[in-house]
Amino acid sequence: LAKSTNKAVKVAKTTKKVGQDDPRRVIHSLKVGLALTLVSSVYYMRPLYEGFGVSGMWAVLTVVVVFEFSVGGTLSKCLNRGFATLFAGALGLGAQHLASLFGDKGEPVVLGLLVFLLAAASSFTRFIPRIKARYDYGVLIFILTFSLVSVSGYRMDELLTLAHQRLSTILIGGATCIIISLFVCPVWAGEDLHKLIASNLEKLANYLEGFEGEYFPDSDSTSEESTVTSKVDKALDLQGYKSVLNSKSTEESLANLARWEPGHGLFGMRHPWKQYLKIGALSRQCAYHIETLNGYIDTDIQAPLEFRNKIRESTTKMSSESSKALKALASAIQTMTDPSAANNHVEMSKTAIKELKIALKDDSVLENVDLVAIIPIASVTSMLTEITRCVERIS
Amino acid sequence: LAKSTNKAVKVAKTTKKVGQDDPRRVIHSLKVGLALTLVSSVYYMRPLYEGFGVSGMWAVLTVVVVFEFSVGGTLSKCLNRGFATLFAGALGLGAQHLASLFGDKGEPVVLGLLVFLLAAASSFTRFIPRIKARYDYGVLIFILTFSLVSVSGYRMDELLTLAHQRLSTILIGGATCIIISLFVCPVWAGEDLHKLIASNLEKLANYLEGFEGEYFPDSDSTSEESTVTSKVDKALDLQGYKSVLNSKSTEESLANLARWEPGHGLFGMRHPWKQYLKIGALSRQCAYHIETLNGYIDTDIQAPLEFRNKIRESTTKMSSESSKALKALASAIQTMTDPSAANNHVEMSKTAIKELKIALKDDSVLENVDLVAIIPIASVTSMLTEITRCVERIS
Repeated sequence: LAKSTNKAVKVAKTTKKVGQDDPRRVIHSLKVGLALTLVSSVYYMRPLYEGFGVSGMWAVLTVVVVFEFSVGGTLSKCLNRGFATLFAGALGLGAQHLASLFGDKGEPVVLGLLVFLLAAASSFTRFIPRIKARYDYGVLIFILTFSLVSVSGYRMDELLTLAHQRLSTILIGGATCIIISLFVCPVWAGEDLHKLIASNLEKLANYLEGFEGEYFPDSDSTSEESTVTSKVDKALDLQGYKSVLNSKSTEESLANLARWEPGHGLFGMRHPWKQYLKIGALSRQCAYHIETLNGYIDTDIQAPLEFRNKIRESTTKMSSESSKALKALASAIQTMTDPSAANNHVEMSKTAIKELKIALKDDSVLENVDLVAIIPIASVTSMLTEITRCVERIS
Repeated sequence: LAKSTNKAVKVAKTTKKVGQDDPRRVIHSLKVGLALTLVSSVYYMRPLYEGFGVSGMWAVLTVVVVFEFSVGGTLSKCLNRGFATLFAGALGLGAQHLASLFGDKGEPVVLGLLVFLLAAASSFTRFIPRIKARYDYGVLIFILTFSLVSVSGYRMDELLTLAHQRLSTILIGGATCIIISLFVCPVWAGEDLHKLIASNLEKLANYLEGFEGEYFPDSDSTSEESTVTSKVDKALDLQGYKSVLNSKSTEESLANLARWEPGHGLFGMRHPWKQYLKIGALSRQCAYHIETLNGYIDTDIQAPLEFRNKIRESTTKMSSESSKALKALASAIQTMTDPSAANNHVEMSKTAIKELKIALKDDSVLENVDLVAIIPIASVTSMLTEITRCVERIS
């Protein structure tokens, strides 16, 4: 019993955490409930809407399947569903007409052949990356509607009323979804992407900011206990960059959804979403370098103090200036202003690199190989910062 | 006109490439066509199966929605759909009965409330990562069926025949999908994962193998032209590791699907799929380091020849031994044998690191900082090789 109580508590905690991580999730759930209740009451009060009949369930089905977390997701599914149904319905009618020309015996064979061909061809198109990204759901609905219509065997006039009913119910379901997702606390995929990119840059900046503290621990540390707790805190803070490493798929799906969204807030109709992907790719590359850099913190530091003091100043400057530059970029993206404030910091970190090179060429103090590793990598990160700035200017 | 012809040719080429990249895609498309034709002919020849009636279209719907590329995907969707329909149907009946206790006026209100609560709660569970990964589709079907059943307003006996019909049609559709995907050229997600992990290790090995050639270009190169073409070839070969960087989401979804698959071939029922994810994570880390390393190839090499010759031998040995170790691991995974063959190579590369350290401590030849970068990174890669080996032993 104690075990199951424990488990229940654990589940409850996870659930709470999921809600706290992003309160919009709770709102989204309520929105789904609202849309479904609305649509099913329309269906329930059939006396009022006698015209819909059994196909009223298509409205419920549409709501359940089409309602997505972001506005872009809902819109893309609605549009995909609508157009695919129309197109496939028309094609299905054509197929039925064609098959009927072959007489009573030929009809089922021709129909079967047509369904086979179209289903196979459409399934195949789902593997093409561009169609998969944008029209996957539409193709699915296309296959479904086509086979339903062509095989239904209804007479033409029956079919037309049926089509009318079904389309109008789908329309009601879809419209309910679109209206609720647009006007009740909308969640914009584009905005999420925007914030994600900015916060990723900030995470990288945080790492670089904390890096010098980790790599050159202060010699005048106070009590033992406080350092331990602060170290754990810091370590957590520094690990933030790890999420940047695997951000690719999230960014791509958000960008895909963002294309479907109408203009909103600061974002125009044809906002350059692809630029975000470029910045994302660059910051990911930066994160790879940081990941390598991070490996050196964990290894025991065994460098002569004399040498460490020598490089300390310029290295610290490099990482802090790069960090500032990244932060300036992040805030420039967030406020959508000119990112020229970052230029200064980039210049500063470049001079720091030069200083470091001079300090190293000065005399050959390089006794410990492990430590030297930090230099080129840090220089690479600051170079990458510069690239990021260039791309930012384009967007 | 020329433009559109051009475009058509381009589309045709992409399509052909998609098919050639993985011929199983073509087979999968044909399988979908086959399943759909079979099920819709059952539906079409209604005289034979009068019992199904309109709900025969649920069989078609099930096939279209449930048929996935891999066996695991199809099975998981079928099981999710089956159990969710059963459970939600029972719950929906209960809800209807409960609501009917509140009289004619209270009934719609109570029903609306119940639909709202359950839809909101279920939508929320879809955000919990574990449920999202495995039961996302089931929850969707649960919401759908529950609202359909509870709002349908049928009398109990009508509902039972309807439920009987619907379940049997879903069963027919699901069974067709499972049988076809299991017995006609099955695509196992587990096998794909297995191959992916092994090929990722091989890609890393290829990079390390080619690395020494890139970093220490032969001085006795023959004609200019041949070097250019071979360089392009090599560069393409070397870029293979880049796909490892973003392999996380693919690996995770494959591992998720693989859990649903029954034992097949060399894989038992409870194959440790999680171990693959661990190996995948380590090889990704290795790829991050290689990404950093790769940055040094692109920069101009400006090291004194004397120094380069000094480190050349041990560096070459390090990268080639690491490469051999990775290759041994990859083939060990592929053939599922003991990976002890790799130990030798790891030992060799470790001694190479020691040699290199000695060579560097010998005298301070470190004049150019950029070059030194290779050493610690290469050592890190070889360390990672060792980690990979450890994990491999576990699985």
